[in-house]
Amino acid sequence: MSALPHVSALVFDVFGTVVDWRSGVARDVGRMLAKHDRGDIHPLHFSDAWRRGYQPAMEEVRSGRRPFARLDVLHREILDRVLQAHGMALPEADAAWLNRAWHRLDPWPDAVPGLLRLRTRHFIAPLSNGNIRLLADMAKRAAIPWDAILGAEAAGAYKPEPAAYLNTAAILGLEPAQVALVAAHNNDLEAARSCGFATAFVPRIEHGPGQTTDLGATGAWDVIASDFEDLASRFDC
Amino acid sequence: MSALPHVSALVFDVFGTVVDWRSGVARDVGRMLAKHDRGDIHPLHFSDAWRRGYQPAMEEVRSGRRPFARLDVLHREILDRVLQAHGMALPEADAAWLNRAWHRLDPWPDAVPGLLRLRTRHFIAPLSNGNIRLLADMAKRAAIPWDAILGAEAAGAYKPEPAAYLNTAAILGLEPAQVALVAAHNNDLEAARSCGFATAFVPRIEHGPGQTTDLGATGAWDVIASDFEDLASRFDC
Repeated sequence: MSALPHVSALVFDVFGTVVDWRSGVARDVGRMLAKHDRGDIHPLHFSDAWRRGYQPAMEEVRSGRRPFARLDVLHREILDRVLQAHGMALPEADAAWLNRAWHRLDPWPDAVPGLLRLRTRHFIAPLSNGNIRLLADMAKRAAIPWDAILGAEAAGAYKPEPAAYLNTAAILGLEPAQVALVAAHNNDLEAARSCGFATAFVPRIEHGPGQTTDLGATGAWDVIASDFEDLASRFDC
Repeated sequence: MSALPHVSALVFDVFGTVVDWRSGVARDVGRMLAKHDRGDIHPLHFSDAWRRGYQPAMEEVRSGRRPFARLDVLHREILDRVLQAHGMALPEADAAWLNRAWHRLDPWPDAVPGLLRLRTRHFIAPLSNGNIRLLADMAKRAAIPWDAILGAEAAGAYKPEPAAYLNTAAILGLEPAQVALVAAHNNDLEAARSCGFATAFVPRIEHGPGQTTDLGATGAWDVIASDFEDLASRFDC
């Protein structure tokens, strides 16, 4: 029997949970650095610097200091600062291409096989802070079989704001308890649970060997699965 | 060569253009009428009455007399009035099931084959007044290969309000001229063109043999195709 028989939709954190953002961004950063003869910069260090701007940029929106802006816009602003810190200025076409590295991330090997199984009996969608075009391009490139592209842009709020979860349930036409959030991040699951969502944790090593957080579940989540294939089995798919 | 080489995304009207709403709604209306021993009511007449409430309900939102409400909500309000007009009161589960008839519509036979071809070289999405869950359920049931589910709910405005088109282009990260609207309705294309969209007309007989409007193109649309297979050929797919 399914771990959570009342759940009819599963929504997923994406960066880190579904896709390996660090390797994917570093791959395209490396190409751009090579093109501009900046082999002295380590692609992973550049990528980590880019990612470090992520939460502060969203916090400007969450705090109300700035109106909602798509993640593509925030990513580009951070990228321009990281480039500047390295004394680089890219031609516009190259900067725009690099900013879309986040549209070209590869799923973890178990992600698509697990989602294909889950999709047979559940409604599945991202609940990511990525914008719709970013998530849709990623899904098209990697054949991620979402039933719809949801997330911060559709909800009009960035996680972990309650509106990000509650507006997503409303779009799905469901009560929060009928929706499970799947994430590799305990704080995301905590916020979802506060809104009444069911919760499922899948551990991921997304920050490389130096990762110190989210190595395991720190809450009593409804489901703790080893990967998306295990997750599908737990949901009877 | 493609009819519109600068267009990278095609967005589609759905009710009438992609799916045959009238037969699909009448099929489920017929089942419900049979179940409640109301064989005296003609399913197509009931369906047409339901559909006649569609534009007036959206006009309440477009005019600003009412805040944005999802089409599922509007459909249900109209359904309750049509039922009442026939002296019927359905159990809640039956009314909710019937309201989701709009989630269970079948595509015209050429629609999915044409979309599968178009999808290989373009980004494709609905730009429908249907809400996200409605369109996603429909796509899942009928294997309509959308890259994302867009439309009035994502844009926060009902067609033919300019915001429905302009916000959709913004979500796609494109200029209006890079987006083509495909529709069987001349007024929809006219509104899209006013916003700078490219336009493609595909004729459909959606109202049955009595249809008097939209039998052909009444504007000089960028593309006039006989069906979605022809449309794919015109876009070099």
